[in-house]
Amino acid sequence: MKLIKTPTKGMNDYLPGETALREYVKGVIAAEYASQGFMRIETPAVEHIENLTGKNGGENEKLIFKILKRGEKLDASLSDPDELCDSGLRYDLTVPLVRYYSNNSASLPMPFQALQIGNVWRADRPQKGRFRQFTQCDIDIIGDATCNAEISLISATAGVLNKLGFKNFSVRINDRRLLRAAALSCGFPEDRLESVFIILDKFDKIGADGVRSELIGEDFSESSCDEYMKLYTGDSASDAEKFASEIGNGAEQTAKILSSLMKSAAAATPGGVKLVFDPTLVRGMSYYTGTIFEITMDGYGYSVGGGGRYDGMIGKFTGQNVPACGFSLGFERIVGALADSGFRIPGTGSSVVIFAEKELDEEQTAQMYVTASLMRSEGSRVLVTPKMKNVGFQKKTLEASGWREFYVWGKDGKREY
Amino acid sequence: MKLIKTPTKGMNDYLPGETALREYVKGVIAAEYASQGFMRIETPAVEHIENLTGKNGGENEKLIFKILKRGEKLDASLSDPDELCDSGLRYDLTVPLVRYYSNNSASLPMPFQALQIGNVWRADRPQKGRFRQFTQCDIDIIGDATCNAEISLISATAGVLNKLGFKNFSVRINDRRLLRAAALSCGFPEDRLESVFIILDKFDKIGADGVRSELIGEDFSESSCDEYMKLYTGDSASDAEKFASEIGNGAEQTAKILSSLMKSAAAATPGGVKLVFDPTLVRGMSYYTGTIFEITMDGYGYSVGGGGRYDGMIGKFTGQNVPACGFSLGFERIVGALADSGFRIPGTGSSVVIFAEKELDEEQTAQMYVTASLMRSEGSRVLVTPKMKNVGFQKKTLEASGWREFYVWGKDGKREY
Repeated sequence: MKLIKTPTKGMNDYLPGETALREYVKGVIAAEYASQGFMRIETPAVEHIENLTGKNGGENEKLIFKILKRGEKLDASLSDPDELCDSGLRYDLTVPLVRYYSNNSASLPMPFQALQIGNVWRADRPQKGRFRQFTQCDIDIIGDATCNAEISLISATAGVLNKLGFKNFSVRINDRRLLRAAALSCGFPEDRLESVFIILDKFDKIGADGVRSELIGEDFSESSCDEYMKLYTGDSASDAEKFASEIGNGAEQTAKILSSLMKSAAAATPGGVKLVFDPTLVRGMSYYTGTIFEITMDGYGYSVGGGGRYDGMIGKFTGQNVPACGFSLGFERIVGALADSGFRIPGTGSSVVIFAEKELDEEQTAQMYVTASLMRSEGSRVLVTPKMKNVGFQKKTLEASGWREFYVWGKDGKREY
Repeated sequence: MKLIKTPTKGMNDYLPGETALREYVKGVIAAEYASQGFMRIETPAVEHIENLTGKNGGENEKLIFKILKRGEKLDASLSDPDELCDSGLRYDLTVPLVRYYSNNSASLPMPFQALQIGNVWRADRPQKGRFRQFTQCDIDIIGDATCNAEISLISATAGVLNKLGFKNFSVRINDRRLLRAAALSCGFPEDRLESVFIILDKFDKIGADGVRSELIGEDFSESSCDEYMKLYTGDSASDAEKFASEIGNGAEQTAKILSSLMKSAAAATPGGVKLVFDPTLVRGMSYYTGTIFEITMDGYGYSVGGGGRYDGMIGKFTGQNVPACGFSLGFERIVGALADSGFRIPGTGSSVVIFAEKELDEEQTAQMYVTASLMRSEGSRVLVTPKMKNVGFQKKTLEASGWREFYVWGKDGKREY
């Protein structure tokens, strides 16, 4: 009876060195967000299947790991494949947050600044940098309709990236209402706006010509497409207020608030943050209602985080109309970018190995452990481990796991290795 | 379309105050075990169904949350209920560790001291203090056949509990070989030893008379039962070496090693640790081959952790014969005992709330955030949040979430609330 050695498809085993980096990054994220007023919460990995398939997850709903019913409930359901499951693994932290908030709001501050760091699961096609179990770090502010929510989210997240030593990131920012106003002003029909946005979203990959031809391919009128592309390639496309003044139609007020919150967010971030108005930014989820943002890093073709305002969503599922705004960091992408940069975890003390020789007596053994304790009390981490025959290889794998100083403990006590 | 508000059966939402305590305890456990040389690793929550149902989990295999196949693979399996699943949620951290070790041993130090802190899932009947998703903290030493492994595991775990401020715990210790030798010396048949142990395991609950009558009820001979109970109620039952001398049959050597490692473990633990030889300790899992241990706390009727040596197991599943020894802490039980004791997280700085009044202009807003940043750089955690109409209730829920100092930021700047 042998085990299958590899992890399940698309999931990972992390070696000690990798895990140390992951835990270090989690620690920085948790500490920085906590200092910014976000309160850590925890929800189960398993959610009711009804909550997961309630159309709040968009495309992600196709990717749910579903959990089989158990016992008699399963027996009663075997004839109907749709009835086999009563729960599933969460595919994001937003659905659980909305459920959590509606379950616990009486005990929570209002507004509520939540921090979640947890795993999510998606049965996606595995590819480089995309896994079937991955970690999300979400901050959300529930119950604050003012743009202070956006300022806090952006400056807190920029603060995290600054603390991790990243210099090469920028926060791209837009507003769903500007997206709508721009498309409407060019004559796109209201009931097909989401199709327009899906194409516009590719602007940074396929350029204005690519967007225009895909729009034409979807049978939108040429005059609408031309006007639309003029808007997005014009000089005013880099400034929210100028962009809005070309649109009119109430967009000016939205743009004014956007400009103002961008200035405040930059001022609120120690070490600063590069904020860029990007009118082509769409964000996939249709539940966004206002500001949307995304973090890009120079040299990486994908975003490392993003979010936005989703004022309608909580009310839709709880009956209580509550504004909300959130930011999600892609943990594995941040860890990957750090690893790529040759980052080393800042030392907090020495990492000492004591190789124990064979046949130490009881007193010698106790003395060795007491010495190790003393070194720990002085701030070192100390591994006591038997000296193996192939101690050269043993040392090499220990070095790969982060150990730096090596001693041997024999019958005469400690000596350097 | 409303969400189901409550978590799935037997699983928990944790409020900010609860989560803060959980994260604090995790931090202490991770830091202390790291300082003792244990290397953190991470495995996926999802395991191959074949690995989970390979009879290494005992009773836990009945409690697996099984995950449905997806897409075409599901369609092809609908006719056979046994073929519906390809994976499941791990029910412990031992099976994943064995798989991990066999997958990655070429990159790992040998011996390898692993630390895992992670969730496991069991579809158990929920009851007080027992959940369907819970956290285990496991340390394991793979590849060390000497009793230095036991010394390290025990002193490291006692170190964790000492760091958390517990004074009222003891480590009960026994050896599977003593259990066997004792039962065999009284004439119990070798092929029924596990049944004998299951009954002996209840000794601390039902006493010697209870154990005797249950053994008789299982048709064991009266003379065996009488001799067995004499052994376990005699004066020598509190001392491993005296206990073994009554048994003979090679038990003396096992007891000598046990006594010696108990002395070394006590000496190796800063602040000391109460170690108690308990010949009635059984531990449920049949894979243990040598030393077994369990932590009890005064005032609690259950153990908060336990473990033992399982030298045979890795070889059984990988073909490579490798000794192993592990210790698992029941995280929720430790957190519960801390909460019961009125424990408060040691302060690391003040927790400040700034209530923002409405209608601050851009400059006033920026000034407020810059002030908050300054306070953070001096070590405070600072929440900037709008002042609500019911600010009294708002303050109360914030206090319940751990906030202690309150200010208001108005058009004239900061004032005390």
